[in-house]
Amino acid sequence: MNYFMYSIAAGMIGLIFAYFLASGITKEHPGNERMREIASYIHEGAMAFLHREYRYLVVFMAIVFSVLTICIGWKTAICFLGGALCSVLAGYFGMRVATKANVRTTEAARQGMSKAIKIAFSGGAVMGMSVAGLGVVGLGTLFILFSQDITAITGFGLGASSIALFARVGGGIYTKAADVGADLVGKIEAGIPEDDPRNPAVIADNVGDNVGDVAGMGADLFESYVGASISALTLGAILYQHGEGIIFPFALSACGVLACIIGVLIGRESKGDNPQAALNLGTYVAGGITMVAAGFLSQMIFGDLNAFWALTAGLVAGMAIGKVTEIYTSGDHSHVRKIAKSAETGPATTIISGLAVGMYSTMWPMIFMVVGMLASFYAMGGAQDAMLGLYGIALAAVGMLSTTGITVAVDAYGPISDNAGGIAEMAGLPHSVREVTDKLDAVGNTTAAIAKGFAIGSAALTALALFASYAQAVELKTINLLEPTTLAGLLLGAMIPFVFAAMTMEAVGAAAFEMIEEVRRQFREIPGLLEGTAKADYKKCVDISTGAALNKMLVPGGLAVVLPVLVGLLLGAGALAGFIAGAVVTGVLVAIFMANAGGAWDNAKKYIEGGAHGGKGSSAHMAAVVGDTVGDPFKDTSGPAMNILIKLMTIVALVFAPVILSYGGLFLKLIK
Amino acid sequence: MNYFMYSIAAGMIGLIFAYFLASGITKEHPGNERMREIASYIHEGAMAFLHREYRYLVVFMAIVFSVLTICIGWKTAICFLGGALCSVLAGYFGMRVATKANVRTTEAARQGMSKAIKIAFSGGAVMGMSVAGLGVVGLGTLFILFSQDITAITGFGLGASSIALFARVGGGIYTKAADVGADLVGKIEAGIPEDDPRNPAVIADNVGDNVGDVAGMGADLFESYVGASISALTLGAILYQHGEGIIFPFALSACGVLACIIGVLIGRESKGDNPQAALNLGTYVAGGITMVAAGFLSQMIFGDLNAFWALTAGLVAGMAIGKVTEIYTSGDHSHVRKIAKSAETGPATTIISGLAVGMYSTMWPMIFMVVGMLASFYAMGGAQDAMLGLYGIALAAVGMLSTTGITVAVDAYGPISDNAGGIAEMAGLPHSVREVTDKLDAVGNTTAAIAKGFAIGSAALTALALFASYAQAVELKTINLLEPTTLAGLLLGAMIPFVFAAMTMEAVGAAAFEMIEEVRRQFREIPGLLEGTAKADYKKCVDISTGAALNKMLVPGGLAVVLPVLVGLLLGAGALAGFIAGAVVTGVLVAIFMANAGGAWDNAKKYIEGGAHGGKGSSAHMAAVVGDTVGDPFKDTSGPAMNILIKLMTIVALVFAPVILSYGGLFLKLIK
Repeated sequence: MNYFMYSIAAGMIGLIFAYFLASGITKEHPGNERMREIASYIHEGAMAFLHREYRYLVVFMAIVFSVLTICIGWKTAICFLGGALCSVLAGYFGMRVATKANVRTTEAARQGMSKAIKIAFSGGAVMGMSVAGLGVVGLGTLFILFSQDITAITGFGLGASSIALFARVGGGIYTKAADVGADLVGKIEAGIPEDDPRNPAVIADNVGDNVGDVAGMGADLFESYVGASISALTLGAILYQHGEGIIFPFALSACGVLACIIGVLIGRESKGDNPQAALNLGTYVAGGITMVAAGFLSQMIFGDLNAFWALTAGLVAGMAIGKVTEIYTSGDHSHVRKIAKSAETGPATTIISGLAVGMYSTMWPMIFMVVGMLASFYAMGGAQDAMLGLYGIALAAVGMLSTTGITVAVDAYGPISDNAGGIAEMAGLPHSVREVTDKLDAVGNTTAAIAKGFAIGSAALTALALFASYAQAVELKTINLLEPTTLAGLLLGAMIPFVFAAMTMEAVGAAAFEMIEEVRRQFREIPGLLEGTAKADYKKCVDISTGAALNKMLVPGGLAVVLPVLVGLLLGAGALAGFIAGAVVTGVLVAIFMANAGGAWDNAKKYIEGGAHGGKGSSAHMAAVVGDTVGDPFKDTSGPAMNILIKLMTIVALVFAPVILSYGGLFLKLIK
Repeated sequence: MNYFMYSIAAGMIGLIFAYFLASGITKEHPGNERMREIASYIHEGAMAFLHREYRYLVVFMAIVFSVLTICIGWKTAICFLGGALCSVLAGYFGMRVATKANVRTTEAARQGMSKAIKIAFSGGAVMGMSVAGLGVVGLGTLFILFSQDITAITGFGLGASSIALFARVGGGIYTKAADVGADLVGKIEAGIPEDDPRNPAVIADNVGDNVGDVAGMGADLFESYVGASISALTLGAILYQHGEGIIFPFALSACGVLACIIGVLIGRESKGDNPQAALNLGTYVAGGITMVAAGFLSQMIFGDLNAFWALTAGLVAGMAIGKVTEIYTSGDHSHVRKIAKSAETGPATTIISGLAVGMYSTMWPMIFMVVGMLASFYAMGGAQDAMLGLYGIALAAVGMLSTTGITVAVDAYGPISDNAGGIAEMAGLPHSVREVTDKLDAVGNTTAAIAKGFAIGSAALTALALFASYAQAVELKTINLLEPTTLAGLLLGAMIPFVFAAMTMEAVGAAAFEMIEEVRRQFREIPGLLEGTAKADYKKCVDISTGAALNKMLVPGGLAVVLPVLVGLLLGAGALAGFIAGAVVTGVLVAIFMANAGGAWDNAKKYIEGGAHGGKGSSAHMAAVVGDTVGDPFKDTSGPAMNILIKLMTIVALVFAPVILSYGGLFLKLIK
């Protein structure tokens, strides 16, 4: 009991810290009138998205809440609400502050680098600490409230997953519809630069950064954070008589929150003009403290260092995956340069070589993931007791996510800097301001690559650990691929990520198409718009993105929730296990493939823009722009959506395990 | 014993029939001098590829033969040689005749449609009947020779797989390197039409059709044919005391060969100007006869119709997959038209929507495959005895492949007609001749789509059945995904198709690049070439394609052979089972995705060329050409390579099962 109270207290401290960061930001100077006006457009656009999202959410949550109450139990339903609410709160708070931090970063950038880093990073840290704090507080409170009822607690994970679905998939569609729409008409047809205020889609594009990259990423990692904890809790509760298996992940998360606070403070206060160094220092300090704490906790709670080693295996795997991500997507390495070279022979070869790089890039991450998984399994003692090993895998995921606070902070810092640059451009500030924000933004991209590695790695490990929890819940001793229904589940599950990727890509295409039509219409119908004498109707574009994002995620989102239950009911618990396994395996592959292909195209274009192969305006550049445009939904919509998909389907299986256990396998009963 | 002799006799009849077809073709008029000259270039180019391939093969086979003799036993090694030899013979004979049938089809097309169909279809049928005949004769002979030693017989499958690797993967790289090279420089840079004799790569392009689509497809289906039989034999041998389980697949194959002869005769002799009707009639007659025979054999050998129903399930699934393939890739349906429409907004949207269509298109085939698999499992009595059900799955694959003779005939007919058109163009024959061959060729494409469905479906079912045989061979009662090594295998195996696809795509890219450089060089350095007064150096281009194809398939090919053994030795038999399962699952998905995306782009381009969205020369057409170029390696290299990959890895696992059983899992032994 005491341990839980300590953990909740640590989470509260994290939240209070976030609050202080936020009020610090609000006190900063919001710039001149023009800047404030633009910032208010972005802020209002972002809030409009959230409010419209909430209307959908209320309906969705009411349905799921009812289903849960009837099929599983009211405690699970309450936990579901709790999880959803915590995620919504984190997103709301984080995005609210991010859309205030952006303009203040622009203003600070007028005086130089140092203060601009501080504001942008603090803005990101609000999101980060909210995610981590609410995760620990929410989970801990419900855990005490329902006297450690693990089955009910899985509902918390389902709530987090549902919001992540809306925020990440909807946000991903939003941001790319706006981006592609703004680029295709603005840059290519009208020939006006990026972030030009004459472009009617420019505000939607900036809102998209917040919706997709701040709120979406936050909800994604909140889900992972909660999911990993739940998998560790479900397995740990069975394994240990005296609650050690439950105490350890809670205690670790608590230490993680505190370590992140220290990391943020150090990163924020580090002087100098090198934003990369500041972010790295903060991250390493937080990671280092957490590692030391993990060692102590492991020795103290379990009496050995096994748990520590399991954690370390996860961390090393995550870092290795991040490093590979960087190698495959950075202009400093051969892969991106190969794509840039192939741009010389036109868009077709650019696409082929980008796809090849993306597919290649799955190799090492998968190997690292497997090594990390096996290492944490055997480090925890899986050779003696398989359950113990699976608990080790769950701990590896918890370890990777224990510094979520700062990971999200670093990640959300990117779009804030990006926005700051956009505001500088639109407000017509001197070029030197844009230079500072560009420098801030460039750093964000590199650190984001590493964060993506962690996001993918932890999602996979979380899903695998939850998979083991599910097997436990439906009382499966083996998940046997020689059984035809399990094999059938595997084949069907493996197909889902492909269909999901197709759906989200088409959603972006259709939404971007609407956006293009609207922008063209405004250029045509608003006199003086291109000359800069009339004002564009930004709101209309924001509306289109918002509507498209929310409408077009309903079908894929609904499928992700319904299909696992359907497979379980028809083909049985074993088939559902196969289904989940298949979805996780191809989901991870497709996620890596799409994220890295997209990243590589993006940087190949930037590499050419840096002067290689003829530079800007050359035919190679034109080809690279095609690659980049294809890569946009790859890396920012469909790829990240995979993380959500696999976690959501796994947690649905886990929550509905009691139903599957009682009524599953109707088809088989019919046959026999 | 008698049954086997009858089967072998049926196979011999098939071969004799092929011989008569071949000599009938040779007797036809080979056209005027210019036509004969062009045809001889193609013929020599194709033979040059084969001869160079054989040099690689000798080394490769010597190594594998030695390894097999040492590790497994001399009988398996002999069977390996037998399988390889039969495949090589079928490929050699089939391609030799195909490169004679092409020019004779052109000549016949001068007199109209009817005779041209007859020659082209007969040419394809030689390949088809050789594949089926040699399959039955080879397998049957070794089966008697080694007194039904099933373990040794798996070597036959390994031999077939190895040749398929060279023929299909090498051939796929060959044909697309030549195609892309010829198109990019010829059509786009030099502005000369397709199949123009001034283009130095034009002969290589025509050779490629034979190498990739005749020999490659033949070897692919030979492998499936043999693989499916072997999986049925290995399971059948254990299940039935009196050999029924072995007799049935042999007898069915024999009936299939005879049915195909009848089908070919009817298709060949059908009068009229409608090639589609001729091909359909032949295929349906052959299929119908085989079905009736299957019913009789099932009742006669097993005393019930279970085997018949299992077969039927496979056939229906195969046809359904083919139908879906057509819907997703034909210009008459919405998917291709959607891609064509998106071409209006440029190459990027064309690529995105094509990729989305390809990914979507995995859904129904996977569902049909699962339904077919479950239906054949339960039809055979899998609910009572799982082994029996797995045998049913193997029979479903055997059923899908029993009419391989005519499937390959229809498929090989396509490139022969294509070649015939090329020869007409290059020889400067009147436009009416080209019209006839174009009509022949168009039909080939539609039937080829259905054949692709069968190829993918049967490859998957064969691999799944072989997977069950493997489990049997390594004495695994369960393949348990809760064991971390099995899960590790699954993750690693699933990654292989992505890497394999990347490697083959890059191989095409690199080879096409060499080809482009060479064509550019010839245009630059040979005076009078573009004016048509000087002759191009065709041989150099053929050489480049040949060298690239064979060199660049060594690494991916080697990996496919070595990796399964490595995984088994390190992580054990269970991990290898997971590895195979993962590879099969994503292999099938990637195969369908790439084949259909490529086919859809191809037909979107043709649809626009038919006048939609501005027609030829419009900006939409330019964008569609980009899609088509990306689709080329998708549909003709990487996609089909997946079939080979999954079957080869599965059969390697099966052949090396004794080694894995004795020495597998070194890593695990180290841990414990």
